[in-house]
Amino acid sequence: MQRKKEKEEKIKIIPLGGLGEVGRNMTVFEYKGKMMILDMGLGFPGEDMPGVDCTIPNSNYLKGKEKNILGIVITHGHYDHIGAIPYIMPQLGKIPIYTSPLTKGMILKRQDDFPNQPPLDIRIIEDGSQLKLGEFQIEFFHQNHNIPDNLGLTIKTPLGQIVHTADFKFDSSPVNGPATNFEKLKKIGRDKVLLLMSDSTGAEEEGHSLSEKVIFENLEKIFKEAKGRIVAASFASLINRIQQLIVLSEKYGRKVVIEGHSMRTNVEIAQTLGKIKSNKKTLIKAKDIAKLPDSQITIVCTGAQGEEEAAFMRIANREHKFIKIKKGDTIVFSSSIIPGNERSVQSLKDKFHRQEATIFHYRMMDIHASGHARREELREMIAIMKPRFFIPVHGQYSMLVRHAEIAQEEGLPNENIIVAENGNIIELSPEEISKDKKKVASSCIMVDGLGVGDIGEVVLRDRHALASDGMFVIIAAVDKQAGKVKGSPDIISRGFVYLRASQELLKETRKRTVRIINRAAGSGGAVNWLYVKEELRNKIGQFLFSKTKKRPMVLPVIIVV
Amino acid sequence: MQRKKEKEEKIKIIPLGGLGEVGRNMTVFEYKGKMMILDMGLGFPGEDMPGVDCTIPNSNYLKGKEKNILGIVITHGHYDHIGAIPYIMPQLGKIPIYTSPLTKGMILKRQDDFPNQPPLDIRIIEDGSQLKLGEFQIEFFHQNHNIPDNLGLTIKTPLGQIVHTADFKFDSSPVNGPATNFEKLKKIGRDKVLLLMSDSTGAEEEGHSLSEKVIFENLEKIFKEAKGRIVAASFASLINRIQQLIVLSEKYGRKVVIEGHSMRTNVEIAQTLGKIKSNKKTLIKAKDIAKLPDSQITIVCTGAQGEEEAAFMRIANREHKFIKIKKGDTIVFSSSIIPGNERSVQSLKDKFHRQEATIFHYRMMDIHASGHARREELREMIAIMKPRFFIPVHGQYSMLVRHAEIAQEEGLPNENIIVAENGNIIELSPEEISKDKKKVASSCIMVDGLGVGDIGEVVLRDRHALASDGMFVIIAAVDKQAGKVKGSPDIISRGFVYLRASQELLKETRKRTVRIINRAAGSGGAVNWLYVKEELRNKIGQFLFSKTKKRPMVLPVIIVV
Repeated sequence: MQRKKEKEEKIKIIPLGGLGEVGRNMTVFEYKGKMMILDMGLGFPGEDMPGVDCTIPNSNYLKGKEKNILGIVITHGHYDHIGAIPYIMPQLGKIPIYTSPLTKGMILKRQDDFPNQPPLDIRIIEDGSQLKLGEFQIEFFHQNHNIPDNLGLTIKTPLGQIVHTADFKFDSSPVNGPATNFEKLKKIGRDKVLLLMSDSTGAEEEGHSLSEKVIFENLEKIFKEAKGRIVAASFASLINRIQQLIVLSEKYGRKVVIEGHSMRTNVEIAQTLGKIKSNKKTLIKAKDIAKLPDSQITIVCTGAQGEEEAAFMRIANREHKFIKIKKGDTIVFSSSIIPGNERSVQSLKDKFHRQEATIFHYRMMDIHASGHARREELREMIAIMKPRFFIPVHGQYSMLVRHAEIAQEEGLPNENIIVAENGNIIELSPEEISKDKKKVASSCIMVDGLGVGDIGEVVLRDRHALASDGMFVIIAAVDKQAGKVKGSPDIISRGFVYLRASQELLKETRKRTVRIINRAAGSGGAVNWLYVKEELRNKIGQFLFSKTKKRPMVLPVIIVV
Repeated sequence: MQRKKEKEEKIKIIPLGGLGEVGRNMTVFEYKGKMMILDMGLGFPGEDMPGVDCTIPNSNYLKGKEKNILGIVITHGHYDHIGAIPYIMPQLGKIPIYTSPLTKGMILKRQDDFPNQPPLDIRIIEDGSQLKLGEFQIEFFHQNHNIPDNLGLTIKTPLGQIVHTADFKFDSSPVNGPATNFEKLKKIGRDKVLLLMSDSTGAEEEGHSLSEKVIFENLEKIFKEAKGRIVAASFASLINRIQQLIVLSEKYGRKVVIEGHSMRTNVEIAQTLGKIKSNKKTLIKAKDIAKLPDSQITIVCTGAQGEEEAAFMRIANREHKFIKIKKGDTIVFSSSIIPGNERSVQSLKDKFHRQEATIFHYRMMDIHASGHARREELREMIAIMKPRFFIPVHGQYSMLVRHAEIAQEEGLPNENIIVAENGNIIELSPEEISKDKKKVASSCIMVDGLGVGDIGEVVLRDRHALASDGMFVIIAAVDKQAGKVKGSPDIISRGFVYLRASQELLKETRKRTVRIINRAAGSGGAVNWLYVKEELRNKIGQFLFSKTKKRPMVLPVIIVV
């Protein structure tokens, strides 16, 4: 029999997002009813969520407990860690947010899109900062990632020390910011770690992530060879890559144009904080490109995922006002492809090839490195921390499982490892870790225009049906006294078949509609219009399917006049 | 000045599909007005074509020239080479199709889905067969791919020899069928090749494709270790992989269940022709699984791409009648991921992980090999054939460009290489190769239910709009005499917002609708209902956007009674 401590003495860890998925990171740490929250990120909608803007964590668990939230800690400025702030904070009220300077800048920038919100109370922390939130004694440590100012944390609690890695990779020769401070990590590890929570995003990738130094060297090869303009696309928030491209441009006598609103704003914020450095005259405006020879121009832009509205796509489509690709230009895709975007990136590549540009992408050459530790680094982190318990965090379920495997290989017994899902209540004591059978609300909240969480399965199912076979509305006016359809029924159809070529089909549908309604309406007795509509839906649906093998959404409207 | 031969003496090569894309392969060879056609494949619809079943080549160029088509040659039985036959052949009439026995079986099987078509005239060819189609003297040679009975061809013409590789890879130790016959290829190469047309699908992949022997050895490791059932998913048409799994099952004392209708039919056809071999008692039915211990069961099934209706997905969802996954079962994803399917495959993987199965996929271990030659093989093919002219075929534009690069590196001058697009007319003479400025019709034909080519941009655009923001139909009956709306307007909305939670929005919309109509109808004069509807569309659209930041398709209907 395991000895049970009293319930209130355990620490509860409740992931509200980020497990079983990449993105939407948010975790609650709770001890004696007092809480701290780590990260508040958004998720990217799946292909099964057409029209949805983003997803956010389900914060239902926090309702009514707002007063018990001591603070919110944000590890870094990527949207999957800060993006849900404008949606969730207004519900929580004025709770201090603790984060690094660059992250603060990026959070505040995003608030501009939500003008009517109460101001946020953001307090600055940095590498080495200490923070006491009730019984949580937090100390922050620098972690390398592909954005500066990223912080891991150790949380000393009355029950023991919890280490959360945040997103990280080990890099002993990064280009921007300090190298991984292994001494500091080892010092934390020597201090007895009760629980390690570690980033699993790279847990299915063998070996060690690439150092940014390798990326820099490969990018330099491109800069050395390039005769014409260089157009390099990446993520707007990949501050470190942008810095590399600026450094190389300066070295090879090029001016830099930053294209894409979000990237430009990020660069401005990072520059103000000294997180991106450049000579005064390096950055120029797109309209000034024509004043310089091609060999002195670098364009850094957003849109490496093939996003429709981004600068890169506009350049590819020859729709950009100042930048038209020509033979001799060099195109650099400096980012990996987010799953789901393969086809649009391929189409983008083909467009540039057709314009006879020279193209480099990460599958040809290591010109992009992920910001996430791979298996050997994850193994090293576990070896350094020597935790008693382990929870793999951040990632698809398969990543969590593969990360748990590593922990087992490093000697942790199976019962000391928890592979959790969103909504799980993980209970931690010095002696044991366990998952409660109950779960807190963790359904995915969808943001759809101004609506947060108000579209559900029904709306999504309808969107799928509409996307696949379209819709077919039949409107019939029925003369009550005559007991038959007045005139010819109206048909509105979209996304089904090409109507101009389907006059015969529409005619026959009208005829059948009239027949069905007249039979019912002319029967003399009271007419059950609901029944008639149901019959129209079925019969017309079957008829259309027999003629087209498509099943549009059939929506009958009967107006009795 | 280049000497111009008379036009009718040149050979025309017209790709109708398969260039700038993967799939939809079809090429016309024309000499003195007489034609042969190579392959007739379908393409897989992009994400920008919701609801579309498949795409087929535009065969408009052949209209009116049917009598000049001497024959159709099909290289192998994959759908991107045979799939358009049921759509295009009825238009062309009775023209002989020349193909290998297995390909014939697969073509005929597919015809079962098109019961009312005239019978096809299919004639058998094999490795070494010779065929004379007018002035085209064709000889076929075996090429390795991941389906048996795949044939490359050399076409001797009065102007010189054309070699078409078909889909291929070099494999000196394949598991099913003969190894690459390099002697034969070299013999062809010694015979002066005027033009080489070679498969570009693998032209962006470095090195050499994996031999099926390596795949076999890795699969064997899994079979050696597995204690429970093995569930291996692949493509229905990947006959060689299915054969490997059968051989291994027999070696390790397992019976094999083939799950998925298309795979089962393919296996039956291949077995009848001796292209898949198994002991009499190896193949069993799914319902007999329970009679045997788990360690004696292999399930080979369709659905490795995460297809909704496939056997693999039903197993993952615990919806399969006879197969429920449990701890100890081994899941094998023996196929690559087709771009665009990454997310559904990830979700499938996660489902199996949650059921605690042991999972192997091609990124963990080489348990799948592409059927296409990589850069080093492509280089070798060019070196063997030493062609005067070169056209890279089959593949995305970027693949064609990268393949052309290899040809240049192998010494072909730039002007001897044609990177072409669908619809190009390539003219070939012994002295030169060129692309005509004109193109033949090559727009992508979409198959949508029973409709072939009848849905166009408008229907697709509507489907996109409907998928993203849904639709909003407003129906108002107007009393002509009273000059105002009768009763309350009906609203039908789908895929927009959750209606039950939006009563206020609907009420306000009805109010605004009535106001707009009454103002127009009550004005006394003749009412321009088109104008009123336009106003409703705009005003109500703006109102809905202001309230929701969504733009549903607003469709007003006014019925004057």
